[in-house]
Amino acid sequence: MTLVLNSSEIKKCVQLNEQLIPIIEDAFKSLALGKTTMPPILRLDIEKYHGESDVKAAYIEGLDSYAIKIASGFFNNPNLGLPSSNGLMILLDSKTGVLKSVLLDKGYLTDVRTAIAGAIAAKHLSNPDSTKAGIIGAGIQAKLQLEALTLVRNIDTAFIWARNSEKVNQFIKDVSKLKINYKVCSSPEEVVKHSEIVVTTTPSKSFLIKNEWLKKGLHITAMGSDAEQKNELEPLIIKNCDQYIPDSLSQTRILGELHHAIDKNIILPNENFNELGNIILDSNLGRKNKEDITVCDLTGTGVQDTAIAKQTYEIAMNLKLGTNIN
Amino acid sequence: MTLVLNSSEIKKCVQLNEQLIPIIEDAFKSLALGKTTMPPILRLDIEKYHGESDVKAAYIEGLDSYAIKIASGFFNNPNLGLPSSNGLMILLDSKTGVLKSVLLDKGYLTDVRTAIAGAIAAKHLSNPDSTKAGIIGAGIQAKLQLEALTLVRNIDTAFIWARNSEKVNQFIKDVSKLKINYKVCSSPEEVVKHSEIVVTTTPSKSFLIKNEWLKKGLHITAMGSDAEQKNELEPLIIKNCDQYIPDSLSQTRILGELHHAIDKNIILPNENFNELGNIILDSNLGRKNKEDITVCDLTGTGVQDTAIAKQTYEIAMNLKLGTNIN
Repeated sequence: MTLVLNSSEIKKCVQLNEQLIPIIEDAFKSLALGKTTMPPILRLDIEKYHGESDVKAAYIEGLDSYAIKIASGFFNNPNLGLPSSNGLMILLDSKTGVLKSVLLDKGYLTDVRTAIAGAIAAKHLSNPDSTKAGIIGAGIQAKLQLEALTLVRNIDTAFIWARNSEKVNQFIKDVSKLKINYKVCSSPEEVVKHSEIVVTTTPSKSFLIKNEWLKKGLHITAMGSDAEQKNELEPLIIKNCDQYIPDSLSQTRILGELHHAIDKNIILPNENFNELGNIILDSNLGRKNKEDITVCDLTGTGVQDTAIAKQTYEIAMNLKLGTNIN
Repeated sequence: MTLVLNSSEIKKCVQLNEQLIPIIEDAFKSLALGKTTMPPILRLDIEKYHGESDVKAAYIEGLDSYAIKIASGFFNNPNLGLPSSNGLMILLDSKTGVLKSVLLDKGYLTDVRTAIAGAIAAKHLSNPDSTKAGIIGAGIQAKLQLEALTLVRNIDTAFIWARNSEKVNQFIKDVSKLKINYKVCSSPEEVVKHSEIVVTTTPSKSFLIKNEWLKKGLHITAMGSDAEQKNELEPLIIKNCDQYIPDSLSQTRILGELHHAIDKNIILPNENFNELGNIILDSNLGRKNKEDITVCDLTGTGVQDTAIAKQTYEIAMNLKLGTNIN
């Protein structure tokens, strides 16, 4: 029997809240400890339609199930009145490979686990008294990353910049429930100037944050870059910050922000960095003092998918949600 | 809406028969013509439980949908009373990435499309008057490959060898419907001696067919080797046969039989070979005369999955089978 869950059932099981933080932290800890098997991402491009499907998979030792996730982005979809993102997760039994569940989440679980990773990055790397958040971009992740920050820091004001001002207006409407102040900025520079934590959430192909804008105490989470050609931070930032922390070093060496610094010979290809999981395991490896500049590079990992898919399935079983198909 | 199909519904849509041959031939033709996008296989190993999940994906230009397939093999399962193989296919819209169907086939469609590839190999490479088939191995593919051969050649006798004699007895029971004669052989050598077409269907890690047994006019399809460590043919055979034809050259350079010949410096890593699709497109590229020795190396391709998943979905829609889940 396979439990098929639709997206409204999935949303009843899992929401963006504090409960998910330790679950995703455990996934990052396993990754840092080498207690996972996470093969390179499979990527299928359909250039004709400006689309791609990515497949991520990870086994975490000790867990009774593992997930394989398909996430698609088709960038002409908005013209057709459809969301660009789509996806589903497959949960399999770790001992037998038997299919336990198909989670037809349409990308919702990816959105949530990605936002939770942003919360975890800020929790372990930003200054604890940070109240000013900067958000670059105004898409779904811009909203969720801001909401996620409020789970771990007492954010009172958000500074926002995005290319598309209409989307900024929508963003402010959507996040009004957070009861914080908003300031629309005229440039990414203005966002950085006012913020203690900056989250970049764009699919930009050229960097938006310049090295010269860095200031003491700043924490940046760059989470928009999940493909080779994407880039949000000037590569010099990777060298000049005090702590560069990837979610998965093997991934950021080929995706994310690090690989641009490697390509430009700013960082050696084999240079070692602690991963987010190492910082969760040992806070001494993170921010050393209030003035450190910290950067977290999130490319999205299969272990996050496995952790959230397993959690969703278990709650759905308890709530007796979903359709069993033999 | 996503159409979820269970395995009994899928079996109503698609069976091992002649109708699938042109559909899978078209997939191989597209592959040979470069009209496909087929990324390298994603493989997740769960060593602790002697298990693995492979993910294959392929887009074929001009088709309105593409498949991503998960196939798992957990080799302790028989001890638990479960089949080792498992799997499902996901069908997505080529223009939007929207999920069209989840095919919970438990590996059935993979079994069928693999057998059909064997039929296609024999159809285009073996001597047309071949009547003697040799089968090495006695698992599911042994049965299906023999059945597939009968679709394209007038097989009157099958010669069978497998390590496990109990499985051989079961094999003979299972294929009794084919109304052909069977002879159980005491060695792979005996099989080759008596056969005009030999199909190897084992997960062997050391070769079973020796170069010195090759004889004029023989066709061999090696389909058991779909992972780096697997090997059914002595690597010298690749050099000494008249035509070596892979399903996908980029795959057999790293999996299948060819890569063992490359590893042993018998074949150069960049040596070029026509693929099965090239032979289908132009029969002059295949067997030149009755005495040629031909070898087809099947590792299993994503384009076959896309072709059979699309076909199954379309028949299911016509027959109004499956469960729609929003």
